[in-house]
Amino acid sequence: MTTRPVAARRDEFRHFIALSTRWSDNDAYGHVNNAIYHHYFDAAVNRVLIEGGALDPVNSLEIGLVVESTCSWFSSLKYPDDVEIGMRVERIGQSSVTYRLGAFAPSAASCAALALYTHVYVNRQTNRPVKVPEAVRRILAPLQP
Amino acid sequence: MTTRPVAARRDEFRHFIALSTRWSDNDAYGHVNNAIYHHYFDAAVNRVLIEGGALDPVNSLEIGLVVESTCSWFSSLKYPDDVEIGMRVERIGQSSVTYRLGAFAPSAASCAALALYTHVYVNRQTNRPVKVPEAVRRILAPLQP
Amino acid sequence: MTTRPVAARRDEFRHFIALSTRWSDNDAYGHVNNAIYHHYFDAAVNRVLIEGGALDPVNSLEIGLVVESTCSWFSSLKYPDDVEIGMRVERIGQSSVTYRLGAFAPSAASCAALALYTHVYVNRQTNRPVKVPEAVRRILAPLQP
Amino acid sequence: MTTRPVAARRDEFRHFIALSTRWSDNDAYGHVNNAIYHHYFDAAVNRVLIEGGALDPVNSLEIGLVVESTCSWFSSLKYPDDVEIGMRVERIGQSSVTYRLGAFAPSAASCAALALYTHVYVNRQTNRPVKVPEAVRRILAPLQP
Repeated sequence: MTTRPVAARRDEFRHFIALSTRWSDNDAYGHVNNAIYHHYFDAAVNRVLIEGGALDPVNSLEIGLVVESTCSWFSSLKYPDDVEIGMRVERIGQSSVTYRLGAFAPSAASCAALALYTHVYVNRQTNRPVKVPEAVRRILAPLQP
Repeated sequence: MTTRPVAARRDEFRHFIALSTRWSDNDAYGHVNNAIYHHYFDAAVNRVLIEGGALDPVNSLEIGLVVESTCSWFSSLKYPDDVEIGMRVERIGQSSVTYRLGAFAPSAASCAALALYTHVYVNRQTNRPVKVPEAVRRILAPLQP
Repeated sequence: MTTRPVAARRDEFRHFIALSTRWSDNDAYGHVNNAIYHHYFDAAVNRVLIEGGALDPVNSLEIGLVVESTCSWFSSLKYPDDVEIGMRVERIGQSSVTYRLGAFAPSAASCAALALYTHVYVNRQTNRPVKVPEAVRRILAPLQP
Repeated sequence: MTTRPVAARRDEFRHFIALSTRWSDNDAYGHVNNAIYHHYFDAAVNRVLIEGGALDPVNSLEIGLVVESTCSWFSSLKYPDDVEIGMRVERIGQSSVTYRLGAFAPSAASCAALALYTHVYVNRQTNRPVKVPEAVRRILAPLQP
């Protein structure tokens, strides 16, 4: 937290997911509450994995759990505007994947919020780390910088 | 609650709003939790009012508060599929508006959930009922059956 | 929706569950958003079932799905005040249970919101209705009027 | 994100807030979703400020916006168990306050999740930074290590 990151531009991401916002995303201050951005990030990352056939939330034996996340905010988003989540895979390790995620207002050149977000893959029954599944690696390879 | 309603078809609605779902919408049973449908309905109704210029959530003096809602479920929705909210204005009274709302899976002919949802317009400072604002009536007129 | 219900008093319920509210429960109007009450109701009902040993959300083969709910609002709740959910079992049928639920501000004599909420029990794998499990009936018997 | 933090013990915090969990906090993996922890942290921090008279979410001219947060997870929490949020004020600057926050299962000696969370105080109308209000400093002084 010593050097504050700067707002990333669109060309720093490899893939975008458009999401709609909700009335209840805006808090008493009239803009999207900070916790809601994490719902957006989860929605974007898991959608890429599920739609790519690399994750079945009910049946997959190997699942990614968030073990670390950081987020910095530069401006606000506001319902009813849509939000676009920019994604880039920062690092694929033995059993972990780190994503760089930006939340953009529809026509904004730079992001309102920038996050790093790390999944560790575990066996769902034992909760022990496992290797990042091959299907996940295949989906994520094109999202690397 | 004596006669259970039947799932409405798409042609029973006058307007549709497409919304994205989120990872956290699915509960421990792997489908969208019942409470989340109410977030979808709020998101759809207020978006029509805000984008039509009939509501400014931070500044409007006259606002609609939900005083009654009912919802019946016929099937499930599931993240990461999108959801489409069908809307029809059932009744515009002196100070209240009742909406009929259906939540549809993308290609479904009939809705997964069907709701009635009543806003009473109040003065935001006194909390006393007021007439449904003219701007709201104008936006909603074309959504009547 | 023809006769509007009246706010129920505390003695109309058989059991109370105290819940805390959250910053994000308050919407742009500065009070708890209507959809959030359904999260409170779910939190209260399932907690009674789980703590009573009648439901294991991950492993139970027979689970209750909400198929119908109605809610009427009489006043507002507001974070950071706690909320107390009054419960009464209205009816236990072959495969369904209907709850009457009231959301009370801490010292309020009558509820801010009153709901009916019906679970249908289904086999989690086939999604077909099953009899209300004996363990559920045992837990709920003392909550009947 | 280079050195992974370790789970903090209870004596590293100065104040605890007990919160209830909700059915919808558990995701498809049957434990509390990562985004929900941020709702807990917001609920705890703002409650201390509001109950201490240092913040009125609807009327205060000077409000704290989250500009940075980090969170690390060490184990899971699960509805219907309660959660206790440990708080410590890490730093009070000119216009910002950084909190250290731990989310504990009821009887756990060390936290399931550990966060840093920074509010910047701004004028609600101009959105420009202001000094941390005196009332906020007074409430937070006893929460410093």
